[in-house]
Amino acid sequence: MVESNALLEEAARLAEAARELQEAAAILISRTRNEEQSLRQRAVALESDLRRLQSSLDSTVRKKGESATGGGVDPKIAEKVDEELCRARCVINDGDVASLLLSKTHGRFLKMFLGPVNVRATRKEVQLKVKEEYNSYRDRTAFLFLLFPSTLLLLRSWVWDACLPALPVQLYQVWLLYLYTTLALRENILRVNGSDIRPWWICHHYCAMLMALISLTWEIKRQPDCAYKQRGVQLFLMWAMMQGVSMLLQNRYQRQRLYTRIALGKAKRMDVVWGETAGVEGQLWLLCPILFILQGFEAYVGLLLLRTAFVGVICEWQASHCIKFYFDSDVIVCGILLVLMAIGNFANTMQTLIAKSRFKAKMKRTRSK
Amino acid sequence: MVESNALLEEAARLAEAARELQEAAAILISRTRNEEQSLRQRAVALESDLRRLQSSLDSTVRKKGESATGGGVDPKIAEKVDEELCRARCVINDGDVASLLLSKTHGRFLKMFLGPVNVRATRKEVQLKVKEEYNSYRDRTAFLFLLFPSTLLLLRSWVWDACLPALPVQLYQVWLLYLYTTLALRENILRVNGSDIRPWWICHHYCAMLMALISLTWEIKRQPDCAYKQRGVQLFLMWAMMQGVSMLLQNRYQRQRLYTRIALGKAKRMDVVWGETAGVEGQLWLLCPILFILQGFEAYVGLLLLRTAFVGVICEWQASHCIKFYFDSDVIVCGILLVLMAIGNFANTMQTLIAKSRFKAKMKRTRSK
Repeated sequence: MVESNALLEEAARLAEAARELQEAAAILISRTRNEEQSLRQRAVALESDLRRLQSSLDSTVRKKGESATGGGVDPKIAEKVDEELCRARCVINDGDVASLLLSKTHGRFLKMFLGPVNVRATRKEVQLKVKEEYNSYRDRTAFLFLLFPSTLLLLRSWVWDACLPALPVQLYQVWLLYLYTTLALRENILRVNGSDIRPWWICHHYCAMLMALISLTWEIKRQPDCAYKQRGVQLFLMWAMMQGVSMLLQNRYQRQRLYTRIALGKAKRMDVVWGETAGVEGQLWLLCPILFILQGFEAYVGLLLLRTAFVGVICEWQASHCIKFYFDSDVIVCGILLVLMAIGNFANTMQTLIAKSRFKAKMKRTRSK
Repeated sequence: MVESNALLEEAARLAEAARELQEAAAILISRTRNEEQSLRQRAVALESDLRRLQSSLDSTVRKKGESATGGGVDPKIAEKVDEELCRARCVINDGDVASLLLSKTHGRFLKMFLGPVNVRATRKEVQLKVKEEYNSYRDRTAFLFLLFPSTLLLLRSWVWDACLPALPVQLYQVWLLYLYTTLALRENILRVNGSDIRPWWICHHYCAMLMALISLTWEIKRQPDCAYKQRGVQLFLMWAMMQGVSMLLQNRYQRQRLYTRIALGKAKRMDVVWGETAGVEGQLWLLCPILFILQGFEAYVGLLLLRTAFVGVICEWQASHCIKFYFDSDVIVCGILLVLMAIGNFANTMQTLIAKSRFKAKMKRTRSK
């Protein structure tokens, strides 16, 4: 009985300890929440003050430019004010305060896949780890991106006698679908965590996801006339190879460029390697033509795909020597998607270049003054 | 110049405020982290104490049973101790303390799709919202799950003249792939958030994902002999319909059962509606036979798929009247997957039933004492 009572006492003590612990945790959580709330309010008020001052600065500078009488603000002081404002914004957006500010909304894509779970990291170092991992993930996959389709195309001409077997191609397409889905998910997560990743870039990955999905439903046709019937698949693989080259180039240049920008204090650490043309200045003149060529090739492959599909239709109408040739709506959709992606990429690149040249012109004007 | 100086002063003031805010945020974050750390240590220590006491209680009870001399612990007191321990564990696992304890590892699947981001919600109410949303998501999809394949099968016999067109079937397969991927993602997220969802249930969804993916590569064959050539697709749709029925039934029964268990204090609020057979006691005798029938049907469909594929092979060997009939490795893999899922489901159901009957026997013994 002595043992029994000892056990009972010990159990009661532990239950009491659990209750105390629960209370302490509840107090800590509610107090932390309140303090975070008050800091958040201060941050929001400060942000609106900064915006107000910035707009009044802009309007005085503009007024001066219009009246040209030299009244209003001294340009040197205006520059100083601009600098101070920039620094204050930087502290808010890149420091610990950022983790307290309300996150951007999660967006439909993340909600569709994950439900209402919160993927915003509260600690800055975790956010940075997420970004680092995204960049290294892109590096790792860029190689595979080049390796897979080129291997398939090489084996096709050396081993498979111009006729791709279904399984390797489909495995590759599944990998593509997985890759684009994960990229889209990770980029959405990055955006929630405060990165300035471009909307077009994510949209581009949605298109690529759709394309990988549709390509999975393609029927990989067999002998005879394999080379002719598999024209679509072959074009698709060539596009993928080009995509791999462009990813490798962009990853390299953008990483360097980002490090430079962070070092210069122009980029936040959460910014990712950018969409199309944010190369290092000197290397930009190498990257740009390559990007334009790739975009042109993308559109060309899209148009070829469209032609492949439509020639099939004409063939069926005339019912001449090309029997067994079906009309592929899948191929048409893929062709349209490729053309759209090429146009979008081109527009995005042009936008970046224009923004760059404007920025440069502004810098020159400031310096000449 | 007065205006300039006012602007500059205001900017300096705001920059100073930003710095102060940053400092306050940094202090709050580091202090909170320290306090959380100390509570976490207390919780871990308490958990190990609870485990120790439980094992010493178990060993004394066992000793008494073996020696049958009646020494050691009074059964009433043992029961009381057990109750106290259970309550303490419940407080730790279900209260605010749980959110401070180190999360379970995220698992390969989540890392593959999302990278190293944290999906564990720190606030209990968010965790519960995630769970609620998962349950309502299952409810919503169960209807679609039944609706889509039955519509396709009905249209097939009424409108399409026994020959399914490719596009609707492929759209349905894409939806299936999306659905199973999201279910697997959400269930992994739930597990990270402390739900006791069964490993087999998640594994089952991986298999179903794989199956939807493979079914996408199926070639939906056309006339002539459509009914014969599309046998595999038809079987697949029938399996999906059955799956829909089983999901609807399970959702309804398990939800009721879970509410009962939560009301009785037997389940934590984060537990989800269980895998196979956690129906409400009285309704279990209705659910069980239906589940067994469905599992049998699943295995039967799998075997039929296997036969379809192998008959195709024999046909090709004999090269008799069934020309144009290809050997489908896809169909074989799907058949094997279905048989595996049926076996796994059956094993899981049996396990649950055995655990239930053991629990009942134990309860009876306790009461008779």
